[in-house]
Amino acid sequence: MSRIHDRLEALRIQLPEAPKPVAAYVPSVQAGQLVYVSGQIPISDGSILAMGPVPSKTPVEQAIAAARQCGINALAVLNDHLEGDLDRISRIVRLGIFVASDPGFTDQPLVANGASELMLEVFGEAGRHARAAVGSVALPLDAAVEVELIVEVD
Amino acid sequence: MSRIHDRLEALRIQLPEAPKPVAAYVPSVQAGQLVYVSGQIPISDGSILAMGPVPSKTPVEQAIAAARQCGINALAVLNDHLEGDLDRISRIVRLGIFVASDPGFTDQPLVANGASELMLEVFGEAGRHARAAVGSVALPLDAAVEVELIVEVD
Amino acid sequence: MSRIHDRLEALRIQLPEAPKPVAAYVPSVQAGQLVYVSGQIPISDGSILAMGPVPSKTPVEQAIAAARQCGINALAVLNDHLEGDLDRISRIVRLGIFVASDPGFTDQPLVANGASELMLEVFGEAGRHARAAVGSVALPLDAAVEVELIVEVD
Repeated sequence: MSRIHDRLEALRIQLPEAPKPVAAYVPSVQAGQLVYVSGQIPISDGSILAMGPVPSKTPVEQAIAAARQCGINALAVLNDHLEGDLDRISRIVRLGIFVASDPGFTDQPLVANGASELMLEVFGEAGRHARAAVGSVALPLDAAVEVELIVEVD
Repeated sequence: MSRIHDRLEALRIQLPEAPKPVAAYVPSVQAGQLVYVSGQIPISDGSILAMGPVPSKTPVEQAIAAARQCGINALAVLNDHLEGDLDRISRIVRLGIFVASDPGFTDQPLVANGASELMLEVFGEAGRHARAAVGSVALPLDAAVEVELIVEVD
Repeated sequence: MSRIHDRLEALRIQLPEAPKPVAAYVPSVQAGQLVYVSGQIPISDGSILAMGPVPSKTPVEQAIAAARQCGINALAVLNDHLEGDLDRISRIVRLGIFVASDPGFTDQPLVANGASELMLEVFGEAGRHARAAVGSVALPLDAAVEVELIVEVD
């Protein structure tokens, strides 16, 4: 019986296998009650959902969906870290959201909401987080969005 | 009697109402003794003090003032979080400072000092913080600067 | 007798004097068991090893070496913070890596590995960290890379 897994099912969100790091680091590290999740890109079924800067290569709507996928991948990493017990997450603390942006694109908050709203949907009050959303000239593997997070666990 | 509020008065800094988040997140989250403040932009009286990259759209001096305003807004958020008791802040731990930058602009540290020096003026020794200052191709609402921070509270 | 200093010697890594902050902040701050190290640039013997964006001004191989130097400088800061007792580091928690990037450069993970692999070489299992690597339009003093980190100490 898992509150959060039930909630994911109700939202029809199926957690993928946790993405493997693309280089010499690990997906998550715990220090005290804080778990740090490495920057996630919008990989789904082995391909990247949105590539290139917003809006010239990635339309805003697609970037929002990509930010949501980054969040789902982060949940998959946390699910691994917590050996399936996502109910141990007491608070989503902070999201760091990088949006590949053309010069002059300033709707990073709108894009970032794709990840933020996922956290609210899944965790309710405990999903309310601090956030920094900024533009980036270019991101790993040409991803349109990268999301890292810090959560507090019991 | 508040040490820090007295100090703000001596510096003639009036805290504004804490800016409302521009999207689906909250201004601050506490985990243990750490308070994470969301990225602040240089809003003052409802308008953004400096818009566009440095230096083509925002001169350096204006960007420094904007960074200071971001810091003031962060203090307003902390004042709300701590229900007016800013004296509970035992240390400014880390500032993350993003400066909207033209290619080739490399004086981000100078701009970031607008926020860093505010912390030193207001908190003295406890205001001495770690920092990462970097350039960003574009920031939310076209702000010239965004500042997030982590503080430790008693 | 120091395990980590022996390891540095075996790797032929000589820690430089800890770089002085280039502005109004401090090299490191501890909060509880976490030490936050300010963003480090690839200064060595007073000059910056790699300047300008990758790849137009800084070839990838040079950027990787620069990321490693950022990591070495961070270790020098930690060595100062811990008064020479690097063995007190129980875990490298998180690296934040900013790579000055031309539009379209998306190999930030490869560059970031210069710092990440250093941590694995020096700390072994305890060096396995979470990470966010992103592109930046321009960095302080025109550095090609900037690395900040969080470590846990006993």
